[in-house]
Amino acid sequence: MSKICGLTFDEYKQKVVDFHGTAAPGLFIGGYMVDLAVKELPKGEFYDVICESVKCLPDAIQILTPCSIGNGWLKIEKIGRFAMTFYNKYTGEGIRLYLDTDKLDKYPPIKEWFLKLTPKDQQDSEKLFASIEKAGSKIISVQKVKVSIPEQKKKKGGKVTLCSVCNESYPAKEGSDKCKVCSGEVKYYSEVK
Amino acid sequence: MSKICGLTFDEYKQKVVDFHGTAAPGLFIGGYMVDLAVKELPKGEFYDVICESVKCLPDAIQILTPCSIGNGWLKIEKIGRFAMTFYNKYTGEGIRLYLDTDKLDKYPPIKEWFLKLTPKDQQDSEKLFASIEKAGSKIISVQKVKVSIPEQKKKKGGKVTLCSVCNESYPAKEGSDKCKVCSGEVKYYSEVK
Repeated sequence: MSKICGLTFDEYKQKVVDFHGTAAPGLFIGGYMVDLAVKELPKGEFYDVICESVKCLPDAIQILTPCSIGNGWLKIEKIGRFAMTFYNKYTGEGIRLYLDTDKLDKYPPIKEWFLKLTPKDQQDSEKLFASIEKAGSKIISVQKVKVSIPEQKKKKGGKVTLCSVCNESYPAKEGSDKCKVCSGEVKYYSEVK
Repeated sequence: MSKICGLTFDEYKQKVVDFHGTAAPGLFIGGYMVDLAVKELPKGEFYDVICESVKCLPDAIQILTPCSIGNGWLKIEKIGRFAMTFYNKYTGEGIRLYLDTDKLDKYPPIKEWFLKLTPKDQQDSEKLFASIEKAGSKIISVQKVKVSIPEQKKKKGGKVTLCSVCNESYPAKEGSDKCKVCSGEVKYYSEVK
């Protein structure tokens, strides 16, 4: 059985449970994706990652690489595909890894789970995990890609300013004298008096 | 000196460096925010978190709580304020914690760093960290809030389908026969042949 970034399946499982709360199948396939990416990429180079799904997959990246949401080396594009792209943030050159549905016929439990062909309560979780471990990175395909850097870059801080309504600090570059909540652009809560 | 979710400043620092890569000041103030939230919230209840900044702060939450981007208990609203909201995902009831600029006058190094009053290379990092540790949660204010749940809920999976172009799986609920990349809605890379 192949390792996941140097970890056995069970060692990785422990890390998954610690960080993610449950041993979700997607994190294991994601683990093999990261493992494959690291093997395919030039050694000793830094890379950023874009994850195409917000579900499960980002945590495999956060567990196994130095990239996190908070340090900005991991970004999420809400595309909903089971895929991630590792790339050099200066040149944009990189590789995109995705779960290749053409390769799933040899692994029926993975196919059933991934394409939701069987209701969750009728799936055999033990068989699924055994199949994932057996498949390793054999169900993943790799594309050579170039990431559009201008789109992904405009990151760096810049000045901050105080909102004229709530008096909290927010990025001055937004141009308004109010933060996004006080201007009404984002509304996710109301204050309870 | 007050602890951060049971950890000493140095113990937490180690976790920050391991996960985030560097001991960024924002993660320490964020640590005291999480610590305060946990103390303020009803014991033994589950909560979800919304973080109002994508920079640094989400990692304090991921390090100190069971909430992660991949398990969905942590979400990010890109508002750019230094704030986070802990809430009950069924009722929406919760608390919002924010760095209160009105409380910064007693802590000049924090004020200078947070409002970017001094260029980064002229800031005294040692004084800044000592000030953060001294301030603890005294620079944080708490609001009682109600989070709009319908907006934040529509999470659960649903069917998946295969894109008619790339043949990768994506959420069927999107209605199109192409995924967001093949339909042109999201474009972050080009394939290198």
